Parts: sequence; C-alpha cells; structure tokens
Amino acid sequence: MHEPGATAGSGGHGRTDIDRLIDERVPGYSLAAPFYISPEFFARDIEAIFASTWIFVASSAEVPEPGDYLTIDIGAYSVIVIRDDDGEIRAHHNVCRHRGTRLLNDLSGSVGNIVCGYHQWTYTPSGELISAGVQAPGFDRSCFSLRSVNLRVIGGLIFICLSPTPPDDIDEVAKVIEPYLAGHDIAGTKVAAQSDLIEDSNWKLVMENNRECYHCEAGHPELTCTFFPTYGYDPDEIPKRLQPAYQRYLDAEDQLHANCDRNGLPYALVEELTGRPTGFRIERAALDGKGESYTMDGSAASAKLLGDLDTFVLGRASLHVQPNMWFHAMGDHVVTFSLLPLAEDKTLVRTTWLVHADAEEGVDYDLDNLTTVWIKTNEQDATFCERGHLGISSPAYVPGPYAPTESQVDDFVTWYIERLKAHKELNGHKEKGMRR
Amino acid sequence: MHEPGATAGSGGHGRTDIDRLIDERVPGYSLAAPFYISPEFFARDIEAIFASTWIFVASSAEVPEPGDYLTIDIGAYSVIVIRDDDGEIRAHHNVCRHRGTRLLNDLSGSVGNIVCGYHQWTYTPSGELISAGVQAPGFDRSCFSLRSVNLRVIGGLIFICLSPTPPDDIDEVAKVIEPYLAGHDIAGTKVAAQSDLIEDSNWKLVMENNRECYHCEAGHPELTCTFFPTYGYDPDEIPKRLQPAYQRYLDAEDQLHANCDRNGLPYALVEELTGRPTGFRIERAALDGKGESYTMDGSAASAKLLGDLDTFVLGRASLHVQPNMWFHAMGDHVVTFSLLPLAEDKTLVRTTWLVHADAEEGVDYDLDNLTTVWIKTNEQDATFCERGHLGISSPAYVPGPYAPTESQVDDFVTWYIERLKAHKELNGHKEKGMRR
Amino acid sequence: MHEPGATAGSGGHGRTDIDRLIDERVPGYSLAAPFYISPEFFARDIEAIFASTWIFVASSAEVPEPGDYLTIDIGAYSVIVIRDDDGEIRAHHNVCRHRGTRLLNDLSGSVGNIVCGYHQWTYTPSGELISAGVQAPGFDRSCFSLRSVNLRVIGGLIFICLSPTPPDDIDEVAKVIEPYLAGHDIAGTKVAAQSDLIEDSNWKLVMENNRECYHCEAGHPELTCTFFPTYGYDPDEIPKRLQPAYQRYLDAEDQLHANCDRNGLPYALVEELTGRPTGFRIERAALDGKGESYTMDGSAASAKLLGDLDTFVLGRASLHVQPNMWFHAMGDHVVTFSLLPLAEDKTLVRTTWLVHADAEEGVDYDLDNLTTVWIKTNEQDATFCERGHLGISSPAYVPGPYAPTESQVDDFVTWYIERLKAHKELNGHKEKGMRR
Repeated sequence: MHEPGATAGSGGHGRTDIDRLIDERVPGYSLAAPFYISPEFFARDIEAIFASTWIFVASSAEVPEPGDYLTIDIGAYSVIVIRDDDGEIRAHHNVCRHRGTRLLNDLSGSVGNIVCGYHQWTYTPSGELISAGVQAPGFDRSCFSLRSVNLRVIGGLIFICLSPTPPDDIDEVAKVIEPYLAGHDIAGTKVAAQSDLIEDSNWKLVMENNRECYHCEAGHPELTCTFFPTYGYDPDEIPKRLQPAYQRYLDAEDQLHANCDRNGLPYALVEELTGRPTGFRIERAALDGKGESYTMDGSAASAKLLGDLDTFVLGRASLHVQPNMWFHAMGDHVVTFSLLPLAEDKTLVRTTWLVHADAEEGVDYDLDNLTTVWIKTNEQDATFCERGHLGISSPAYVPGPYAPTESQVDDFVTWYIERLKAHKELNGHKEKGMRR
Repeated sequence: MHEPGATAGSGGHGRTDIDRLIDERVPGYSLAAPFYISPEFFARDIEAIFASTWIFVASSAEVPEPGDYLTIDIGAYSVIVIRDDDGEIRAHHNVCRHRGTRLLNDLSGSVGNIVCGYHQWTYTPSGELISAGVQAPGFDRSCFSLRSVNLRVIGGLIFICLSPTPPDDIDEVAKVIEPYLAGHDIAGTKVAAQSDLIEDSNWKLVMENNRECYHCEAGHPELTCTFFPTYGYDPDEIPKRLQPAYQRYLDAEDQLHANCDRNGLPYALVEELTGRPTGFRIERAALDGKGESYTMDGSAASAKLLGDLDTFVLGRASLHVQPNMWFHAMGDHVVTFSLLPLAEDKTLVRTTWLVHADAEEGVDYDLDNLTTVWIKTNEQDATFCERGHLGISSPAYVPGPYAPTESQVDDFVTWYIERLKAHKELNGHKEKGMRR
Repeated sequence: MHEPGATAGSGGHGRTDIDRLIDERVPGYSLAAPFYISPEFFARDIEAIFASTWIFVASSAEVPEPGDYLTIDIGAYSVIVIRDDDGEIRAHHNVCRHRGTRLLNDLSGSVGNIVCGYHQWTYTPSGELISAGVQAPGFDRSCFSLRSVNLRVIGGLIFICLSPTPPDDIDEVAKVIEPYLAGHDIAGTKVAAQSDLIEDSNWKLVMENNRECYHCEAGHPELTCTFFPTYGYDPDEIPKRLQPAYQRYLDAEDQLHANCDRNGLPYALVEELTGRPTGFRIERAALDGKGESYTMDGSAASAKLLGDLDTFVLGRASLHVQPNMWFHAMGDHVVTFSLLPLAEDKTLVRTTWLVHADAEEGVDYDLDNLTTVWIKTNEQDATFCERGHLGISSPAYVPGPYAPTESQVDDFVTWYIERLKAHKELNGHKEKGMRR
C-alpha cells in the first residue's frame, strides 16, 4: 500500500532495466517513472523513436526560396533543411566532413552554397563538396558529400527521418493525409508568427498532455471558447451538463459537412494511432463560437481565405502524427506544432502560424488576435507538463489509471511501447549478426 | 607520502565501492572524498539516511490553522505537511494518484481540499480522494488516496519519516526531549522570520560544521558575543587563555540552574548521538553577555516572554537531532534549523525565528536585532562549508584527524556510518528474501 | 555510406570502450567523437594527460615577490604556486590536511603564511604545518605538511607536474628551450594584461585549432596582418597566389637571422612533437609587416626593449609545449597562452601579455594596441572551436582527413594517443602489481 522507494529515481538504468520496463508496461496506466525522468531512457527515446520514425520539422512556407534553410536539432543531431536550386527541399546533417564543425549556426537563413566557416569547405545545397582548399593528391571530393537525411513533404508539411531505413508506411499515410491539407494550400502561405517554448518536462508528457481535453475545461479558458467541451468523449459517455454543448456541436458539424462537400474537403475521422510506425489521426471538426478560427470568439483572424476556399466556416482540419506533431488548418490560417526533445526534462514546442502569402499584417490580420489562443494555451500546458514531470520525479510516484476521455493518451503510450519493442528487436538482431 | 590520485574523484561509484568505503571508515578522521562528492553516494544518503530516519521539517507554528500547508523537498521527494480539519498535522506525498502531477506547488499556503490543478482530482487534507471527474465503471476512489508519510510532533517540532517502517526509538527520544521544550510553548509562537540559504556543499559538511566550535573564535564574531568560547572543550583541556571565560561560564550556569529550577525546566545534558537511529543531544546552557538571547549583547530580542516563563535569563535549550536539525530555545524566542540535501554539492539550510504569537514587530521585537547573529553566522558557515567541499573535491585530499574539540563531529560521522551499515544489512536481506 | 548512429553520443563509455577507441585511432584523421565529448574520456584525459605530464601554468613574472601566489585549477585539482621566502617558486595542493578545506580562494594574492580560514591551521610557503590549534597529545605536525607538487621554471616559464613521477625528459627539453627564451629576460618583465576566456569546447579542439593556420586567412584578419600566410605550408606546396608572400617571408627571415646572430639568439626550428612525454616545438620566425610585434601593423607595442636586445626586429620566438601551451616572445613583449580543461566541453584559455618591468602603461605602451590582435584572434578561435564541438556532438559526425597544412594537428593527436597508451600500460601494470 505504502511503498516509497518502489521506483528507483533517475539513477543508472542499464540496457536490461530499460528492456524489462518496456516489457512490463501496463496498458491503461501511465508509464513507470524512469520512462519520463531517466537520462538513459531519454537516450533510448532518441535512438528508437526520434532517429527511427518520421519527424515533423517545419512547413514548406518556412523555406520559400532556393537557398533558404532551417537548422533543426533533434537530440544531439543537427539537421539542415534547405530548398535546393531546383526547388526541391533537401536535408543534410549539419556537420562538416573535414573536422566535424557545425556548418550553419543560425535557426534559419539563406545561402548560395553551404560554406564551413572554419576552413571554407564548400557544399552545394544538394550536399556535394565542391571546394576544400589545398589537399593532398588523391583527395577525392566525391567521398566527402554531406551526409544526407531522408525527407518527405506531405501537403506542405516537411517530415524527416534520421534513419537510413525510414518506415515506408509514410506513403500510405501521405495518401490519406494529403487530401485533407490540399485545399488549404500551405505552399501558398507565409509565416505570420513563430514561438519557441521550452518546457521543463519530458517530451512524452508534452505529447500526452496534447492527447486529451480532460484538462481543458478548467485549464484552458481561451481554447475552450472555440473548443467543444465534449472533445474526447464517447457520445454515450457525455455527462448531462454537456448535453447542450453536444447539440451545438452536432449542428455545427452539419454546417461544416455541407461547406466541406461544396469545397471538396474530406472530413471523416481516420485514426491509426497504433499498429504502424507512422501512427496518425486526422479529422475535420467544427469549432465552437463563430466556427471559423482559433480566436477568442471563433471568427477568422486573417481576412484572406486560404487557397480557393469559399467560406471561413470550415472548422479545423486537425492532424496528429506520432511522435512529435499536431496541427490545425482553418479557412483563414494554419497552425503547426512541432515537439523537439532537448533532454529528459526539457522539450521544445515550436508553434508556427501560417496565413495566406498575400495577407498583410495590420491590414488583413492582427498578430495578437491570430496568436493569443495558442500562446495562452501553450503556456497553460507548459505548467501542467512541468508539474507532471516534477511529481513523477518523486520516488513516491506510481503509475495511475487513464480516464475514458484519455484513450488517445493510452494509444500514444501503446504506440510508443510498440516502437521501443520494434527497435529492440531490430537492434537485438543487429547485435547478434555483426559486431561494430 | 605524495600520492595524488589516491582518491578517484567523483566518477562512477558502484554499489560495491560504496559498501567497501563504508566498511573502511577510520574513526577519528574525516570521511573519504566520495562520501562527500559522489552523486552515487548522495543517492545512497537519500535512501539510507533521509528516507529512513526521522527528519525535522518545521515547527507547528508554521501551520497554525486547518488547511495551512507546507511543501518540503527531500531529495527527489516532495511532501505536503498539512493541518487537518481536526487540528492534527498530517503528511502526504505531493503526487497526484492520477498521472503523478505535483499537487501543491508553493512552499506554503492554505487550502480547503488538495486539488490537482491538472484534472481536478480532489483529496481531503487526510488524503482521501473525493472527486476524480468522469471515470469508468468500477473505478474505486478508495484505492487512490494520497500516499501518506509518517509524522510526529514533539514539543511543537514536526518530524517526518519517509520510510513505512520508521525507527521506533522516536518514542524514547520524544520522552526525553519534550520536557525541555514544553516551557517554551512552541505551539503558542508565530514565525517572525525565515531564511533559506543554499550552500554549495555536501549536507554532511554542513552538519559537521555545526557540530564543533573549534572554528567559532576566529570565524563567528557575532555568535561569540553570547557563546562561551569554551564550548566543546573538556573541562580538563581548557587552555589557559580561556580560563576567565570558563569562570564566567560557571557563574552563569549557576544562575541558569536556579532560574530553571524555579520555572520547572530541565537542563541536564543528554547526549545519545550514536548507537540509535534517532541520535540526539539536548542540554540547556548559559549564554554569555546578558545571558538572555542570541543577540549581539545577549539581551532579549523580543519583549514577550514565551509560555509562562518568569525570566529571560534561561540561556539556550539546544537540541540536535541527527541527521538534519539543530535548534535553540531561549526565554524570548526560538530558532530552528533544518538542513535539506538538494544534491551532493548543494544543501538548503532553513532557519526559522519564532516569537510569542502576540509579539508585534516594531513594538516587541526588531527583526534585524532578532536575526542578525544567525544570519551572519549562517553566511560565515556557508563559506567554510563551500571551501570544505571544494578542497575535498581535489583528488589530492586525504582524510585528516579530528581535534579533541571535534568529538561531536566524530560522533555524527560514526552515527552516519552506523545508519549506512544498518540500511545495507536490511537491504541485503531484502534482496535475498524477495525480488521486485 | 549513410549511417547515423555510427557513433554512440556521449553516454556511458567504460574503461574497455576507451581502451578500444585508443587502439583504433586512424592516423591522419580527426579522433572519434567520444574522445571529444564523453565525460568518461575527459576523466581519462585529466588522469593520463593533465595529471601525468608537465603543464604550463604561469610565468615567473606573475609571482614577483616572496609570498606572492597563484591558484591554478586543473580538473578537480587546485594547486597553489607560491614564491617562497628564499625566492624559489614552489607548488602545493590547495587542500588543508585537517578536514580538506581549500586554503587559498583567490586567483592570486600575497600571504605571509598559508592559513586555513576554517580552523587556522597554518603552513609556511614551503608547506610545513607550524600551527594547528589544540590537539591531542601525540599529534605530530610534521605528518601534516601540504602535499607538494613538482615544479620547474624554464626560462621564466613555470611548469608543474601533478604526478609524483614526472616525465624526466623535461631536462632535455629545458636545455633546448632556455637559450631561445634567455634573451627576452622574462624574469625582468611584468604582467601588462591577462585575459581568461572560457570556450565551450573540448580542450583538444582548442589545441588542434592552434596547431594549424589553414583557417587563418579567412578567419583571422587581425592576426594575418603580421602572420605570413604561408605558415604551415611545405615550401613545395605553396600555392601560386601565395608566392609573393613567400618571397617577402624569405627576405624577412634573412633580416631576422642577421639580427639574431648579433644578439646571440638561436632561431632554428626544433620540432619534437611526438615520441616523447614533453612534446614540443620551438622556432624563431619573422613577422610580416614591420616585423617587430603582434600588432595591427607589426610595429612594437611597447617602447622598452626586453633584456639587452638591440633591435625590435626579432620576429617571434614561438614555443609550443604539449599538452597545454603556446607562447610568443618578441623584442618588445611576450605573450603566453595556457590552456586549462574545465569539463569535456569547457576549456579555459588564459592569455598573458608581459612587457619590460620598467615599461609604463600610457607612456611606453598602449594596452589596446598591445592586446588587440590576440584578443580578437582568441575570440575568433573560440567560435571555431565551439562550432567544432557542436558538430562533433552529432551522432552523424565521422572523423575526417587532415589536410597537408594540418600536419602539426596530426602530430598533436599522435602525441596524445602515445600518452594515453603509455598511461594505460603503466596503469595496467599497477593494477596487476597491487591492489588499492
């Protein structure tokens, strides 16, 4: 009953401990503490999740012109995402092949070629080494191209995979997702705002927080202006006090479906959170209030409709791709969220607001009005996640049960354990088959 | 003779190294470096000392009303100390039974129930879960009470023990201690001031520093105003230059004993620092100067006498309970010290000044006058401890001999090793008897 | 070809991993990542390099008078360098023999005796304990002298060795070096300026950066005012664009040699970077521009010639001693560089400018003019080293090839591996021969 010390704090989890804890996971319950707080588990997460699955890093609107680049850190990795001269977006490890110097040191910028500031080794945006100063005879430049990283653009969303053998279910997922995104024409947007928030919390707690709205009613006064409070409930389980809201929701859904059908936008829920490497969920759902956008009253924040849409009343197309993204496309703007793990207790949440490329700040949109709901919501969630991390750090923590409204949290954790097991198995075979 | 590298720095002390170093401790000498600087040893200290013995955390005056609470961090543990509606003080782990969120996030405050800010799970001050939102059928709230922590109030001093099987010698110790404290009526005091000082030093160096006054004459000009410079000396060993001070001390003791007898206060020294889990030392001793209080001239700092005492000339009732407290009760005020380990090189020293509940600041007492001596002394000690920690961090450190005036330091270290051995033995049996 | 994860990040390198990586080093290539980023490797570096070889710490001009001292931190070691009453410079571990307190807590100062601030244990500058308060009968002060550290002064440069068995090739090295330094009379100088720069980089990257000028042309606009751009090139390999500079260099060398011969200064290159514990390189080389000093136009920064020199046109006597120093002596001033490792990713570079003891600031020299070139160059190098460290931290880093102009970098790395192997062998024997 009373057993402080049942978990062993964050100290010293060897490969065997980690493997045992993976096998012992109890479905329906939060994970054991070491998953969240141990540096060794964090290293495993980077290797088995963030370096093995597809990771959302940016939208194509963030690198509009050839030479435009971003640098993205994933664990100790640093990756350059750059638009090549042919218009294609490519990704390379941000490491010079000479003595390993980090090549590009800003979060974003624009270059002709990628030049190392140390000894001027020069690479094309495609990663080919074209100049390396005076070298010994026999030096073969073609052996020193940048190490490239797999990259997929899906409906304007850029995903990378650090593994040389990326999960190939990305094609299936892309086929499902793209039609939902197409009408919002992300390629025709521009970045209106971006915020980087570092939360003192394990990345899984940040993701779990995002996967339920059990905490929304009391925790997110701004978000709940447009968020139906019945989110996450089974229709059968909706408590009495929420019935009026539910009826409002049903009416808004009907309106939404009519608008979508007219604009050729799919809206059905597709949820494949577990059982595949690229677990995802997509749906289009009505917003409460004016039903147009994530603002305090639900009315559109940007006056320019995206793409060829004919109405703002399109609710939100909400996409979630595991392990690190959630996303909402409305008629007037798009907001993307990318979660990047920095340490076992530190996670970067990058939020980007995209509006029509022709929209003018101060004319077509007001920045505060556009960003308030999610800036406030992010801050509130950061507090929840940080307190979650603190509490779980106590040796007195024991895993607790997920409520019915937390089924997507349970799905996320199930997916996570699936991925760890898949990686373990692959790795076990590797270890038997060869010796480094 | 000259052997740098004899100690191995702070890197990588396994269970075996720790156990070996415990067995090899040489009495009369300071401990080997890893005891002070290794993170692995720190983890052992938390487990074997701070989670296994009785820890002083506050006085009852800090939670005067029902619903008043404190949060106390001990290593990675966070504990809520709260006064229940029935007036009893209780302690619980500060961890929600849902998903582990830290419940109360301030150092102190007042609540009706304990409500988790994340999903509104609600617990009574007794720890019972009374509300948990919508749950699946079969959810049994009674299985999700807060995990409670053992707590004892002794003469107004609150001790907790994180272990489910706390040392039962606390009853014997309480019986000895309480009569010394009773006359000062701690329940009838209020907090006049509190200071938290974080010292960059291992907690044992902080404790060792407190257990001798070899360093006082040169190191504590303010404290030595009222501290007889013969403190810690054997009567036979008092150097010639200190003989006049010793005579002054003997006279003051005679006066003290007469005053104590009249007020029904015990004053005999009881010292049981080793050989028991709850090692302690208590005595009442005269103060130098006016003999009333820890002020620059020894006169009372607060005009309101504590309890029913009839004179301020009562010296100090000084209590020390291992591992983490020292304490002085005077006729006019009480000062408590609680040491809480934060990391192998970081220790919180919390000092609290209590005066009569009816005393008014600016009328009955001046805050500076009340606190100066110990604020200055704490700062001076912090410097000593930090330099101690820095020096011991050098691989060139070798344990050195304690002087005769450092016998209580040696006793503390002996007690500490006893506790480590007792824990090791218990743990060894556990490991044999069962498998987690 | 594409194999992220080939290196294992910085986590958990045991003794075996370290030993294996030492054996697998590929000459001509930068080291594997763990050498630079792993805390375990850093601990090995401290033990095998910084506690085993001769380390440059200061010039004698920094402790001009008896009682003048410096404190130097090397890893967790703290060492006192003090000029004794007899004028000799001595070194001791900065650790009290009582309870281990750090004795001297400033970077530099002046004392009569070395007194511990805690309990007033008092040591002479020679390290003898002369006072220790009241002690038990039988306490023998002579058993508690400070633990001393080996020290050699070579031409005014102070080297210490933490090992009780320091490499004895220091005598041979001293014999070669001293004649180059003698004419600059370092004992007759004073400190004009000192800068401490902490670089977020492994110490070896800082050293490697210093061992080549491949990066100078683009990277060091101030330094290249006086630095021939052909530095580090084989005469046969000098590219066409650098031929005019090379001819200028040859002319300056002729002038230099005439001036040196007249002043009795040796100038031949002696390079023994590998194959000995005290790897070094010394030469006198012409400076570009006015050829007198490291200033923006190459003219002397201080109007007072050092020693008995009869001209400022003496180029630079450049000394490099592995693992931690480089140094330049000109006719008007001397600049010393001491590299001290703080953590696997943190290195202190201390730069000291020495001018004639009689030179007056504002009259004979302008501080900005004296220090600008190296302050700017240090800052530029810090950026290169920090980006090197960041890049190598990526699991995508693979060792790359050194260019022909980087031969001294390769020599440094070769020497480093030699030292690790020598230490490993010695240690292996120790482990077999005895048990601590």
